[in-house]
Amino acid sequence: MSEDGAAALGTGSNSGRDVESPNGIGTETKAGFEVTPWSVEGEVDYERLIREFGTSSLDGNLLERLRRVLGEDHFLLRRGIFFSHRDLDLALDDVESGRGVFLYTGRGPSGPMHVGHIIPFYFTKWLQDKLGTNVYIQLTDDEKFLERRRGLSLEDTRKWSYENALDIIAAGFDPERTFIVQDTEYMGNMYPLVIRIASKLTFNTVKAVFGFTGETNIGMAFYPAVQIAPTMFERRRCLIPAAIDQDPYWRIQRDIAEDLGFHKTAAIHSKFVPPLTGPAGKMSASSPEGAIYLTDDPATVRRKVMKYAFSGGQPTVELHRRYGGNPDVDVAFQWLYMFFEPDDSRMEKIRQDYISGALLSGELKEMLVDRLNSFLEAHREARERAKETYHLFVHDGALAKDMLSKRHGI
Amino acid sequence: MSEDGAAALGTGSNSGRDVESPNGIGTETKAGFEVTPWSVEGEVDYERLIREFGTSSLDGNLLERLRRVLGEDHFLLRRGIFFSHRDLDLALDDVESGRGVFLYTGRGPSGPMHVGHIIPFYFTKWLQDKLGTNVYIQLTDDEKFLERRRGLSLEDTRKWSYENALDIIAAGFDPERTFIVQDTEYMGNMYPLVIRIASKLTFNTVKAVFGFTGETNIGMAFYPAVQIAPTMFERRRCLIPAAIDQDPYWRIQRDIAEDLGFHKTAAIHSKFVPPLTGPAGKMSASSPEGAIYLTDDPATVRRKVMKYAFSGGQPTVELHRRYGGNPDVDVAFQWLYMFFEPDDSRMEKIRQDYISGALLSGELKEMLVDRLNSFLEAHREARERAKETYHLFVHDGALAKDMLSKRHGI
Repeated sequence: MSEDGAAALGTGSNSGRDVESPNGIGTETKAGFEVTPWSVEGEVDYERLIREFGTSSLDGNLLERLRRVLGEDHFLLRRGIFFSHRDLDLALDDVESGRGVFLYTGRGPSGPMHVGHIIPFYFTKWLQDKLGTNVYIQLTDDEKFLERRRGLSLEDTRKWSYENALDIIAAGFDPERTFIVQDTEYMGNMYPLVIRIASKLTFNTVKAVFGFTGETNIGMAFYPAVQIAPTMFERRRCLIPAAIDQDPYWRIQRDIAEDLGFHKTAAIHSKFVPPLTGPAGKMSASSPEGAIYLTDDPATVRRKVMKYAFSGGQPTVELHRRYGGNPDVDVAFQWLYMFFEPDDSRMEKIRQDYISGALLSGELKEMLVDRLNSFLEAHREARERAKETYHLFVHDGALAKDMLSKRHGI
Repeated sequence: MSEDGAAALGTGSNSGRDVESPNGIGTETKAGFEVTPWSVEGEVDYERLIREFGTSSLDGNLLERLRRVLGEDHFLLRRGIFFSHRDLDLALDDVESGRGVFLYTGRGPSGPMHVGHIIPFYFTKWLQDKLGTNVYIQLTDDEKFLERRRGLSLEDTRKWSYENALDIIAAGFDPERTFIVQDTEYMGNMYPLVIRIASKLTFNTVKAVFGFTGETNIGMAFYPAVQIAPTMFERRRCLIPAAIDQDPYWRIQRDIAEDLGFHKTAAIHSKFVPPLTGPAGKMSASSPEGAIYLTDDPATVRRKVMKYAFSGGQPTVELHRRYGGNPDVDVAFQWLYMFFEPDDSRMEKIRQDYISGALLSGELKEMLVDRLNSFLEAHREARERAKETYHLFVHDGALAKDMLSKRHGI
């Protein structure tokens, strides 16, 4: 799982540059963007990503059906932040027929979480509420140690697993129906399943899909089997809400799942939250000026947004009043649209005012600062409470107890 | 671990023929023999193996010192069945200084064990008695499933783990100081250590050492880290009694151990027990006519030895009485020498009588049948008792309890 609510794969000697994508999994591009499970660079053409990854658009009748089955709309769906899927139609069949589905997502615990990281978890929690399903959240402390990209020790990634778990729990998951799968803690229960998966994947496959080389360590070469395992925690269909950069794992899962007696996983893919510093790519914890951490205090949030948020406004107030701003490249606008202003009519008014020039870039940024700080204050309170409920998600909740008594793959 | 008391590595698509040995680990040979962790073919030149593997001869002063430290001789040492080593001198330093060592060996649970499989375990048990040390015995049920050579299911390899454990326990190990490490059972306790090891080994390394290819599955690519892990179960030096075909694992262990804060492992290497059918190679469970299983009844043992044991005798009694037999190629003689006739003076008389022609080939075979059946009767009684003590080796003995409370690598 990546630091962005999903896996960031890679090896010590690999940069995203070394990626091969002979299977059309992963895309290295002339058009100025690149999406792999461990990096997103440039301005992403999401329609092209759908074609190259071989996924399907989430729109029209299917989107309508999703809303109907869930019994409620969500602005992340309405606004196309979740824009692509695999087999969501089959997952909805399973929901409607009573067979049911389960949800799975995760996080690579490589450091503190920023606001981009937490969005898919709030959405997943909403899905859990609507579907009443189990949720499995994988914390890939093994991967983040093995990838050797940040020089993290296993002690580091285990510490971040706990810290990140608190943020994830703060999103409001049901402690009786949610299990946090920390790989180095849960491997004993899932190793037989993991090696069944590993037996179906050759080094050539993971080399092609993830850009591994001969210098990749054998732990990383093995790791894809670990990330795939939770898709087979139940005999029902798994539905994965995650950023689209994780799709390569799900694609190879789908090649082998039925052979192993499980369902091909379904997935619902989100776009990337852009960094403060520019409208392209995705926010990264490794460029701190482009990220708002969940721990940033109000003054820090204000300073970062004011100083770094890429503006679509005009160079002067006079020019701005005359020509208006460009919301499509303005990061403050994008962040409001993508998560921090759920109200559509308010969002539409902001757009019109910005385009007309009535709303200045600084005023737009102040709106974002305000929303961010409200969100962060509530989140941090929930995070404090999570320290008291953490044990339910790993040991003592109903699902956790059930999972700790299971041996998957035996 | 191989089916021969040590690891037989390989992958579905690999035969021994595909082996590369660019590092001089493993030897593919013009001189008519080949030794890899998963196959031994041809007549082995052990002196050459020592040169090519880069190990040291076990003879002269060191052998003398080993006997002195252990306080007793063993015919497998005296007769050069254990013929090679790594750092045995340092292991003896550790024994004499009081730092101590621990013992580690294992078995690939791919089917029933034959008499060749069990010999190293009887020797390891003797070492345990003399040294008073802990012994770890790995049952590589993951590897034997992952290698896909025999089409074994994980259910099969887990079943054979139990069956083989009974035979191993029958060798007489101390239940308070011996822990049976069945990989799919113990992985939860050792995964953090395993990934620390994996992080130090590239795919190129395991490809070169074990002959893996791009078609090797990622479970097998990862597996060397699993076999290395028990060498780091204690902060003391590990001493491994095993057939020399397993040495490639120990060689890579020695390249990375100190980086991880552990000792380079020491090893003491045995020769291979030849199959009944010929003086070359090693006994294999996959050619049943060449193997005596621990479960073979007296009549079966007699029939197999009489029918299949490669003879060094002359074509007729008359010629035999005149020219005598050749003990160097006679498998009945070799088996008596290698394990079943510990008494040196009796062995020497057998040799002389066979060379002189006084002892006929059929009589020699009868002697082997007699020794084999006595051994097997005692072994099977011990194996029955092992069903009662098995739990001590995996759960309830002092060492087992201690090991189950440990998390290695955290």
